[in-house]
This record gives sequence, C-alpha cells and structure tokens, in this order.
Amino acid sequence: MRAVAVIGVGQSEFGKFPWRSAASLGAEAVKAAITDCGISPRAIQVAYCARAYDANCTAQGILKEVGIRGIEMINVENACAGGATSFRGVWKEIADGRYDVGIAMGVESMTTSPVAGKLIPPEKSDLDGHLGLTMPGMFAMVARRQMEFGATAEDFAQVSVKNHHNGCLNPQAQYKKEFTVEEILGSRMICDPITLLMCCPNTDGAAAAILCSLEVARRYTSHPIRVLASALCSADYKFAQEDICASPVGVKVAKMAYEMAGVDPQDIDLVEMHDAFANEEILRYEDLLLCKPGEGLDLLRSGATAIGGRIPVNPSGGLLALGHPLSASGVRTVCEVVLHLRGQAGARQTPKAKVGLAQMLGGLVTNLEHGAVAGIHILAR
Amino acid sequence: MRAVAVIGVGQSEFGKFPWRSAASLGAEAVKAAITDCGISPRAIQVAYCARAYDANCTAQGILKEVGIRGIEMINVENACAGGATSFRGVWKEIADGRYDVGIAMGVESMTTSPVAGKLIPPEKSDLDGHLGLTMPGMFAMVARRQMEFGATAEDFAQVSVKNHHNGCLNPQAQYKKEFTVEEILGSRMICDPITLLMCCPNTDGAAAAILCSLEVARRYTSHPIRVLASALCSADYKFAQEDICASPVGVKVAKMAYEMAGVDPQDIDLVEMHDAFANEEILRYEDLLLCKPGEGLDLLRSGATAIGGRIPVNPSGGLLALGHPLSASGVRTVCEVVLHLRGQAGARQTPKAKVGLAQMLGGLVTNLEHGAVAGIHILAR
Repeated sequence: MRAVAVIGVGQSEFGKFPWRSAASLGAEAVKAAITDCGISPRAIQVAYCARAYDANCTAQGILKEVGIRGIEMINVENACAGGATSFRGVWKEIADGRYDVGIAMGVESMTTSPVAGKLIPPEKSDLDGHLGLTMPGMFAMVARRQMEFGATAEDFAQVSVKNHHNGCLNPQAQYKKEFTVEEILGSRMICDPITLLMCCPNTDGAAAAILCSLEVARRYTSHPIRVLASALCSADYKFAQEDICASPVGVKVAKMAYEMAGVDPQDIDLVEMHDAFANEEILRYEDLLLCKPGEGLDLLRSGATAIGGRIPVNPSGGLLALGHPLSASGVRTVCEVVLHLRGQAGARQTPKAKVGLAQMLGGLVTNLEHGAVAGIHILAR
Repeated sequence: MRAVAVIGVGQSEFGKFPWRSAASLGAEAVKAAITDCGISPRAIQVAYCARAYDANCTAQGILKEVGIRGIEMINVENACAGGATSFRGVWKEIADGRYDVGIAMGVESMTTSPVAGKLIPPEKSDLDGHLGLTMPGMFAMVARRQMEFGATAEDFAQVSVKNHHNGCLNPQAQYKKEFTVEEILGSRMICDPITLLMCCPNTDGAAAAILCSLEVARRYTSHPIRVLASALCSADYKFAQEDICASPVGVKVAKMAYEMAGVDPQDIDLVEMHDAFANEEILRYEDLLLCKPGEGLDLLRSGATAIGGRIPVNPSGGLLALGHPLSASGVRTVCEVVLHLRGQAGARQTPKAKVGLAQMLGGLVTNLEHGAVAGIHILAR
C-alpha cells in the first residue's frame, strides 16, 4: 500500500444560498483546492463526490465547470459520513496504486432540495421518524439520558458557546457570532432540552481535497500532509440497542484508525468531528478515546477541547457554527485538519499541530431502522 | 492485480410495487445471490450499493435485513450506470487485495420515489430539461437524426419486438408479452417517432452479485465466472457536442474494456446493454464495435442480435421488457451474463456462451448540462 498525501484543500462559502446550484458550490471548492496546490486540472485522474440529496452525476456536473472531464468519476452517499466515504474512496485509489492523483469532493444544497427542506426528513420506511423521532428528537432523548449521568443543559450549551466562539475565528463559517450560555439556553426550544442554538444549521456548501501519492506530492509541495489512517465501517446494530448514548461503530472505527496510523489518542493535536447537536460532541470525546469512558463531561468542563486547550475539538466552529452541508462535512473536516497541520489556520490555529483527526458519523446511530456509519481519517505533517 | 470471479447472482421481482420498500427489494436480491452460491452472509466483507433516488444509507438498510452488519458499506450513484459503478467498486476492492469477498447491489424504487415519479425529472439546473428536453425528447431527437441516415420507425419497433420476445422467455421480466411491429408503432405516441412501447417502463427492483478472488471462488464452485475487464469513465463533453447520435464515452470505455480483457468484439457471445429507448440499442451496437460504424442498422436487420443470432443482445428482455430500475440495471446486466456463461439462462440461453459483455450508460449522453458515464464489464467462463 502506497503512502498518500493531501496537497490541496478548498471550501466554498457556507450558508443558505437558494440561488446557487450544487455544481457551482462544488466548483468553487474545487477551484480553491486547485489554486491551493497549483496543480493542473488535467493532472487529476479520478474523482469521488458525496451528495446525499438530489444526486444526479454530481461529480460530473461540478467538474465540467472547471474543465475536468473524461476521467473516472464516482458519486457516493453515506449520510453525514458521505464526505468521509468520498475522501476514503480517493485515498484507496491512490494507496492501491490504481491512480496517482485524485480529488475528493462533498457537496450539499440543503436549502434548494425538494427532499431535505428545513429538516432532514425521515426515510419512508422509518416509522420511528414519522412518529416524531427525527434527528432533534433522537438527540434530545440522548441528552436526557446524558443528564441522568450528571450532564446539565448548561454543559450542552457550553459546547455551543465554544464552537460558536471558534466560528468567529473562521472567515468561512456560516455563523460568526459569540453566544453566552444564557443565550444558547434561552433560544427557541426545539426538543427539550435541545434549543435552537444547540442544533447545527441548514447549510449549503461544498469542500474538496486533492490527494496524491507521497511521491507525486513532492512535486507540488515540500510539506505534504500525509494520510496516516483511513477507516470506515457500518454499524453492527445488535450492540447499538444496548445504550442510546453509545456509538459502538464510532469506537470501533476510532480503534481501527489509531491502529492503522500507529498513534495513540494522546498523540492527536486537534479533532474535527460530528457535532450535529451540542450534546453529541461530549459523547464523541469518549468514542474517540480522547478521555476515559464516562469522562467526556469532565473533558469539556476542563476547557481542554477549546482552542488553546490540550486537544482542541472543532476549532473550525464545527457543524454548529461553521455549518453542516451534510455530504460536504466529511471532506471539510479533513480540509480543516490540513490547514492546522500546515500552520495556516489563522486565528484558530492549533499551536504546533503535528497530528490531526477528522471524524464523521452518518445515519441515526441508535435508530434500528437506519444505517449508521463512521469514518475517520488521521493526518500528519 | 488479482483475478476476480462472480460466484453468486440474484434479482428481485421487477415491476411496479409501490407497497414495497427499496430495502425489501434489495434484500430479496441479496438473499437470491447468497442462495445461488451458498456463501455464509458472514463471509461478506465489503458492500457497494447503487441507488439514484432517495438514497439514505441504502446498503446498510438492505443488508440489515439479511443479517450482514458491521462491514464497510459504500453507497454509490452514477445515474443508469450506478449499478456498473457498484459492481466495479467491489471488483476493485478484491482486485486490489483489500478484501476477499464482497457484494455489489443496485436498487431503485421508482414508483414510490417522491423525486422520480413517472418520468425521470430534469435536474434543477438543467434548463434544456425544463424546457421539454426530457429523456424521451432527447432520444426522439436522436431517432430523427438516425432516420436521416436510413433508419425507419419500423426498425426502432423491431428492437422492441425483439426485446419483448426475449422478455417472454425470462420468468423475471416485468413484461412478458409478444408485440408486433404494428402494435409497437400503434401504441401511444410519446415523442415522435418514439411510441410508448419503444420506451423502457418505470420499474421497481434490485439485483445483487457476490464477487470474490478467484482463489476464494474455488471454495464455492468448480465453475467460477471470471471478470476479464472492468472499465468506467465519464464523458469528455467536447466530443459529445459534435454528433447527437454519438457516445464517444461509450466507444472509449468499450475499447478500454476489450483491451483489458484481451478479447476482440467478435469474441463476445452475448451482450446486455442500455436500451432505455428502442432506437438507442442500434447506436450502442456501433459503440461496442459489434459492427462497423454506420452498420448498426444492418446488424439489427440481419437478425444477428436476436436470440439464436450471431451475437444476441439483451436476451433478458433488456430495459424495454425486463424493466429498468435505474441503479439496479448495471448489476442486473452482469447477473444475466453470468447465467448465460453458466448455461443457466433457460429458454433464452445463448448456446455455448464463453464470453459476455454487460454495458451501462448513465446520464444524458448528449446533454451538455449533465454528466454522462459509461461502464462495461466483460466476463468469461
């Protein structure tokens, strides 16, 4: 298996752009990634693109706009982990020696989707969803369970305060506004105890990353960012039923990734992860073994996961403030990690970052009627 | 690169089943493929699933129904070539040595899709489509151009007569009814000269194929079907603009596939291909180099592509009679080829078939606003 590097990253503007097409958002991200590394579009040999809603040869539509044509293009979907699947697809092509250079994309046009609308709709066969157990409902149930173990609504709000603060330091964030715990708690109640400002927003946007073999990377940069691990797996539901807060697949994939990368959780300098709802981030600390089981709350309260802390989590602003165009997020998290490893993350830079982790979860982890998938990439300078 | 074999194939019933979910159709196909080769579901290590409409972790939803969980699952989309993309995805995983056994699936629930409805809708950004250049409109324009070069409406009808005849020999076909040229021509006009019976129907259905390394295959069968070639590429639009009848990407991918397989077009014993509209099949004869450029019509008129002819095309009944659940078709065509190579195709069997070709095209080949992709697999006993 060959060593793979990321040489170019790019992101479109994130926000609500009902007047923009998915192709134009994607092309904006692709152009940024190409500019970032100075590669010729003609050097790109394979493309993956993730999109959950209204997919229709999306990769082809995006790449036509930037003059990339006549190559193998694969459109993928894996709910919120679609972007991670896209990135992993390109990584495999290069690691396995099939191609030397590829582009991973993710895009979502949530505001214009006739399907997505204002809320991720339950699948047709998802009875729980149709009876009210939509995403906010599910995560509110999870939050209630967390509260039985000592979490408070203030803790959840604190995650949102942190990530909104981070978003203020990211020029590309959908929301750049500081909030207090009181403001988070005082925002409109969505599903008790989850308030509006504890939910990730509806976002249109795209992200792109250009990958190549480490050998080829040296032609473009003297500081390639290496992909140390790529891991993706779907859930084994029999375990998921035991604890509504647990994500066994999240833990499994984390262990796979650490083993593959040959690093320990304490070697990780920053994490970008799935914080679709504020309370979720606390659970994910534990999945990723950033702390011992049951100590996620302590980790949050200690301030370790804030910018400047021991292990900054979602310095980009995360899904909560940067925004969450579903299938884009799994590529975008990798892009953010790359910026930190290069020392190009501006005001939100993680000092001396050497190893970073990008995680995504897709599907309702605890819903027995849905698929669930976790994807993790570990990168290093 | 390792040699890859297909050991199990399966198909759900094809038809209009608004009361069935995509997961149940997929599970039916998967169970059939598992039964076909007698493999344990636990032996399957990776899964790909194609679905164009309403995708939502479809692979996970299907496989949960048959007890396959906790493995890497990738959902793909590439319009009508989605199934070919799914099959190629699994082929790559095994050829590249990443996994030993995998399952390729394709499924579509067209009748229940809030998006697909009764007609494949144009993409939001597809101005041509919204102005009336939907699929039947596009293929009618193509047909008119074919008529300038000597084709008649009777020729197009003859393709439909042939494929509907074939469908009568296939217990799994959506339509099992013989039609005369007069009946085809006399059916409702959709877009002149294309009549209703020259269009593939709206279909719900799924297909699945189990692939493994040739070494592993020998554990399950003494007669594995080998995958000689897998080729997939997206269009280079600058050529597509020159001739509305041409599919440069179709020709390019055919040449790639023949070269990889090390066979000539005349070595092919049967072909399963994209006949979404009757007139299209004639053009595809030429793309696949089954005859010289411009001689597709002669090939049809000679009867060579009928069952019992020199090179049967769509002995299954094709999209026209067997049905066309978009993303399922690219897997289903491979399944049909496998049956013929095994000598298990019943009344529609191609005698002494040694090498077969399964082709799919996706997207509007000649539409400048859409992606277009061709996927071809060549298999041999």
